[in-house]
Amino acid sequence: MLNFERSYERTPDQLRPVIFERGFTRYAEGSVLVSFGETRVLCNASVEENVPPFMRGEGRGWVTAEYSMLPRATQTRSPREAARGKIGGRTHEIQRLIGRSLRAVVDLEGLGERTIKIDCDVLQADGGTRTASITGAYVALHDALSGLLEKGLIERMPIIESVAAVSVGVVVGVPLLDLDYQEDFQAQVDMNFVITSSGRFVEVQGTAEEEPFTAEELDALRDLAMKGCADLTSLQQRALEA
Amino acid sequence: MLNFERSYERTPDQLRPVIFERGFTRYAEGSVLVSFGETRVLCNASVEENVPPFMRGEGRGWVTAEYSMLPRATQTRSPREAARGKIGGRTHEIQRLIGRSLRAVVDLEGLGERTIKIDCDVLQADGGTRTASITGAYVALHDALSGLLEKGLIERMPIIESVAAVSVGVVVGVPLLDLDYQEDFQAQVDMNFVITSSGRFVEVQGTAEEEPFTAEELDALRDLAMKGCADLTSLQQRALEA
Amino acid sequence: MLNFERSYERTPDQLRPVIFERGFTRYAEGSVLVSFGETRVLCNASVEENVPPFMRGEGRGWVTAEYSMLPRATQTRSPREAARGKIGGRTHEIQRLIGRSLRAVVDLEGLGERTIKIDCDVLQADGGTRTASITGAYVALHDALSGLLEKGLIERMPIIESVAAVSVGVVVGVPLLDLDYQEDFQAQVDMNFVITSSGRFVEVQGTAEEEPFTAEELDALRDLAMKGCADLTSLQQRALEA
Amino acid sequence: MLNFERSYERTPDQLRPVIFERGFTRYAEGSVLVSFGETRVLCNASVEENVPPFMRGEGRGWVTAEYSMLPRATQTRSPREAARGKIGGRTHEIQRLIGRSLRAVVDLEGLGERTIKIDCDVLQADGGTRTASITGAYVALHDALSGLLEKGLIERMPIIESVAAVSVGVVVGVPLLDLDYQEDFQAQVDMNFVITSSGRFVEVQGTAEEEPFTAEELDALRDLAMKGCADLTSLQQRALEA
Amino acid sequence: MLNFERSYERTPDQLRPVIFERGFTRYAEGSVLVSFGETRVLCNASVEENVPPFMRGEGRGWVTAEYSMLPRATQTRSPREAARGKIGGRTHEIQRLIGRSLRAVVDLEGLGERTIKIDCDVLQADGGTRTASITGAYVALHDALSGLLEKGLIERMPIIESVAAVSVGVVVGVPLLDLDYQEDFQAQVDMNFVITSSGRFVEVQGTAEEEPFTAEELDALRDLAMKGCADLTSLQQRALEA
Amino acid sequence: MLNFERSYERTPDQLRPVIFERGFTRYAEGSVLVSFGETRVLCNASVEENVPPFMRGEGRGWVTAEYSMLPRATQTRSPREAARGKIGGRTHEIQRLIGRSLRAVVDLEGLGERTIKIDCDVLQADGGTRTASITGAYVALHDALSGLLEKGLIERMPIIESVAAVSVGVVVGVPLLDLDYQEDFQAQVDMNFVITSSGRFVEVQGTAEEEPFTAEELDALRDLAMKGCADLTSLQQRALEA
Repeated sequence: MLNFERSYERTPDQLRPVIFERGFTRYAEGSVLVSFGETRVLCNASVEENVPPFMRGEGRGWVTAEYSMLPRATQTRSPREAARGKIGGRTHEIQRLIGRSLRAVVDLEGLGERTIKIDCDVLQADGGTRTASITGAYVALHDALSGLLEKGLIERMPIIESVAAVSVGVVVGVPLLDLDYQEDFQAQVDMNFVITSSGRFVEVQGTAEEEPFTAEELDALRDLAMKGCADLTSLQQRALEA
Repeated sequence: MLNFERSYERTPDQLRPVIFERGFTRYAEGSVLVSFGETRVLCNASVEENVPPFMRGEGRGWVTAEYSMLPRATQTRSPREAARGKIGGRTHEIQRLIGRSLRAVVDLEGLGERTIKIDCDVLQADGGTRTASITGAYVALHDALSGLLEKGLIERMPIIESVAAVSVGVVVGVPLLDLDYQEDFQAQVDMNFVITSSGRFVEVQGTAEEEPFTAEELDALRDLAMKGCADLTSLQQRALEA
Repeated sequence: MLNFERSYERTPDQLRPVIFERGFTRYAEGSVLVSFGETRVLCNASVEENVPPFMRGEGRGWVTAEYSMLPRATQTRSPREAARGKIGGRTHEIQRLIGRSLRAVVDLEGLGERTIKIDCDVLQADGGTRTASITGAYVALHDALSGLLEKGLIERMPIIESVAAVSVGVVVGVPLLDLDYQEDFQAQVDMNFVITSSGRFVEVQGTAEEEPFTAEELDALRDLAMKGCADLTSLQQRALEA
Repeated sequence: MLNFERSYERTPDQLRPVIFERGFTRYAEGSVLVSFGETRVLCNASVEENVPPFMRGEGRGWVTAEYSMLPRATQTRSPREAARGKIGGRTHEIQRLIGRSLRAVVDLEGLGERTIKIDCDVLQADGGTRTASITGAYVALHDALSGLLEKGLIERMPIIESVAAVSVGVVVGVPLLDLDYQEDFQAQVDMNFVITSSGRFVEVQGTAEEEPFTAEELDALRDLAMKGCADLTSLQQRALEA
Repeated sequence: MLNFERSYERTPDQLRPVIFERGFTRYAEGSVLVSFGETRVLCNASVEENVPPFMRGEGRGWVTAEYSMLPRATQTRSPREAARGKIGGRTHEIQRLIGRSLRAVVDLEGLGERTIKIDCDVLQADGGTRTASITGAYVALHDALSGLLEKGLIERMPIIESVAAVSVGVVVGVPLLDLDYQEDFQAQVDMNFVITSSGRFVEVQGTAEEEPFTAEELDALRDLAMKGCADLTSLQQRALEA
Repeated sequence: MLNFERSYERTPDQLRPVIFERGFTRYAEGSVLVSFGETRVLCNASVEENVPPFMRGEGRGWVTAEYSMLPRATQTRSPREAARGKIGGRTHEIQRLIGRSLRAVVDLEGLGERTIKIDCDVLQADGGTRTASITGAYVALHDALSGLLEKGLIERMPIIESVAAVSVGVVVGVPLLDLDYQEDFQAQVDMNFVITSSGRFVEVQGTAEEEPFTAEELDALRDLAMKGCADLTSLQQRALEA
């Protein structure tokens, strides 16, 4: 049993309130402000009519992502990466993860020789910014691709299935879904799962924060994540139908 | 006479609709999303209990600013400065301008040995991002200082008077107030004024885009800017009283 | 059934020949050249009598790692990161992973206020460089700590249990242990596991290279990895007793 | 009335002695050492037979500038920007200003697809380095263009009118022309004007150093600057006729 | 007379034991681990089928080198240059020296439009790393060129003669050949000579560490170096015949 | 015999006209514009009342140098190192050489815990910029130290003897002293010597540009350099007495 109250009075297997605000900015081909509770990420998808040099002439497209936190997205201000003149290791890890996750569900041949660049800018961070980014980026990507379809630039949606991501963790011995910052801070184990709408895995990342975890804990967390991503898949679906 | 229609059906001496959303994010001591029409800038003021090394022990505070555009704030995506590994000349110019403008109206002794850092992140850009940043940053700064006052960390508001900024320019021969991107693009002359509530100048910056301008044009633009900043001062006042 | 022959005529659940050459260089407090088949990584552990600034005065130690490939460790030469002036995302990811993996089995309080820095330099790369690095780094770390113990700088070994790492993947439908470059290149799924001698997980990282994988595949790969890390644990043990 | 003596026993509306040494170095197409009193800037104009990538094929030329201070141009040595690995904000601002000022009086079509690069290197700094740079750069530019004309590479001088720049400011309440470092240091208001030979404005930049300034002060400073630039225009003319 | 014992009980004009391990790694076209006593450098020669942009179309090849020390090649760990984001002055000097030394004995026309890049990575440093690098790099280069010859990509070996390098110095008044770290540390004069098999000089570099040296000392050091390089030439010859 | 005419109708063992303009700028503690024919270098010596961190508390001083070429010192413009964001290998080599050369003749203990920084900025380059820099820097250093002596900050001149530098080379078979750019460009061998007033060597650097050189050529060049430095020593002496 949990000996503390979760934000939004959630049970261990419940997501925070998840909201997708499509069309949040006006210039991006897809622009979604996604909220997982107090975590808010602006996901802007841009279409560029070319691919990186190493892919030219192959007839395939590319999907890539950049991730950044506004300096005051967090409780205390963090220095701006542009001011420090380089991108940190954590940022690199996250933006590579977002890119891989999206590419796993896109038919790159169907996309044609163009690049979709997704900028995930965290306006407010309360845990789970990378999973919110992936989940919101999928919706922004879908909007950008719908635009290409409407303009007749592609013949059909080059999306194989949808993808969502969620964090899970063990806090004071209890496996929890969708950790907020307070929970994340106390977690013994912290995992992120990226799962498609068919219930298959794109990425699994787990880290023992304090001490190593057992195969049983791994199973429990995997099940929670599958449940959470199924819920997110429905919410994405609903948002895209709105 | 103007031979084109201004956005929002404005007369030459009218501002775009200006909105201040205070408390836009929850962690910053002052957080204001300011809109000048479609230009939207998130101004977050952070309080740090120290000053830069060169000022230590002098009993005075400091106010500084950083400015950035989200990559897709604009019609076409711009590369992220963090990714390019350095801050461009334009960004440098603007963040120095914002810092100087705010320091001109702050009693740095009254602030004590602390720094207020204002992050101005442009979510959407439709002309006038630097003037919107200064105008919104003043409100965020005021909120951050009010917080210090409430906590008893300072005894009275270390603000001498308020400050606002506006762009003016000559478009197809007509002096206009608060140019949007379309107008800015066509302007022969482009000026930015930073003016206090007592009608005095903190900064004057004018550039002939196409051909040099006359002393008469300079006078006309100055008068428009004084009118515009007086309007902004009232709007700031109203927002802070809300 | 496998329709190709594995290097060293291995069965799907067999490691490549693993060799630890202790004392490979003479100055480092621990120096191990580890080979996983043709993958060869020089792991040098250095003891520094201080900790990073953010940890000073807390009485705890730190373990961190840096990772690099010699330009010609690979089939075609890669540019040197020092020459490009920055460390790439992949390098960042790997060196953070190595550091976390080792810290998970070290009693940082028992280490005292000192830092063990492990440099993992890949001399030759044939797949699995990050897992070889972790596995070899553990032996180098052990040697460095033994040195501290012998000099009386610490009272007992600040190691909780041992740690090893292995890659697993699905190649043409068959789950395989310890992929070489050729196998890695063709893998549909690629996972890395970091597992302690008690069979618990420190890190789990899985990526669908081509298409998402099922819960069954995840289970099969986890079991293979547990088998492989148990084998590596024995080999580390034997090397340390030599 | 002034309660201190100005350098060179100047009245408030007098320039410092201004000298142009043409042909100061032998390789640059235009090479002018300009002195405004003790401020000495070497302005070298180089002709390059191409334009930046974004302008290729448009049949127009480009004029750009770089600005730098020798480390010991000032009373105390400043670190070299090359050693710090980046160009500071102030340098960026100034070199953009010089470039814009010169482009305003050049017929870029008449120049053809070539670039004139002006390097302004401050050998000694006693206030007004940016205005001396612009004023000297114009002469160097003129010399470089005369060379093109003599070689028959262009048919006529692609210069619309001449341009000069001067600083003005309010010191202990008195508006002064062409401030030296000592005056600049004490100024309440500091402005720079770039004005053409026809008395029109290319750039106006004013900053309240201590407290905001009034519309009356703005007018007085503008008049001083127009007088000063008219004087500089004559001196440039005379130097070019020498 | 020497009042201390040299490592390996050497006389003043004796080299340390020199070993060339050819084929140390498997992917490089030439791969030599060279040891001068405890100094060990991995020299990998890579063939690239192009030349730097400034040489294209001239029908000539290029030979260049990069040099780096592993962080723990030395008694105390040095920060990694990639982590510091730039290559230091000493590294620049050495890699330029290695490149020039090799180019002096290569017939660049005979090489054709290809580049040989030699990576010299110091695994262990005990003095003389740059001279060991040059001496080992020559052997790696020879192996890479032999490979081109065998594949029929070139018609004959584009090597004019062989080249070797050695350090000499004056320690407590005595001129010594091939200084180890302990001797180098105490040397009053430190010189490096790069000499071809015909006994001619490619590079001469001498530095007075403590006080200037006389013409007589210069002569004595030169003679020692000629003797040492002749010995190295024989050893290279023998290694290549093995 | 020479089959071409040297600049200034020089014989093979003659220097170009050498001029020292002391006090060229007004703020540096020593400021010398040195000319070796058309090569002109501004050498500014700055006194700083501290030493680098690694030397603090040892009671000794430090002498260091920075070297840079103005972009248009040369026949064609070179990009500014500050703009490229890093200092090139050649610059590193030269500034390290200048620093070592000056330290060799300074009594660092006698200097006390202060740093003399010499900035050598090449205004015009016609060959021999590094040797002109060393030769001029010595005079600037002397002036800066004389200033310290006059102010009573040191008790006696901490200079052991004077130092000068010159380039020598073999051009179309003839050994020449003090090469200008045209000669340097054609030289088969290019050497730089740094020699003290007592005729002893501080630095010897020789590079075979085209083909290796013999021991006889080395001797001839050494003799020329000793003659040239003796001449420079007299000229420095005379300049300092002026």
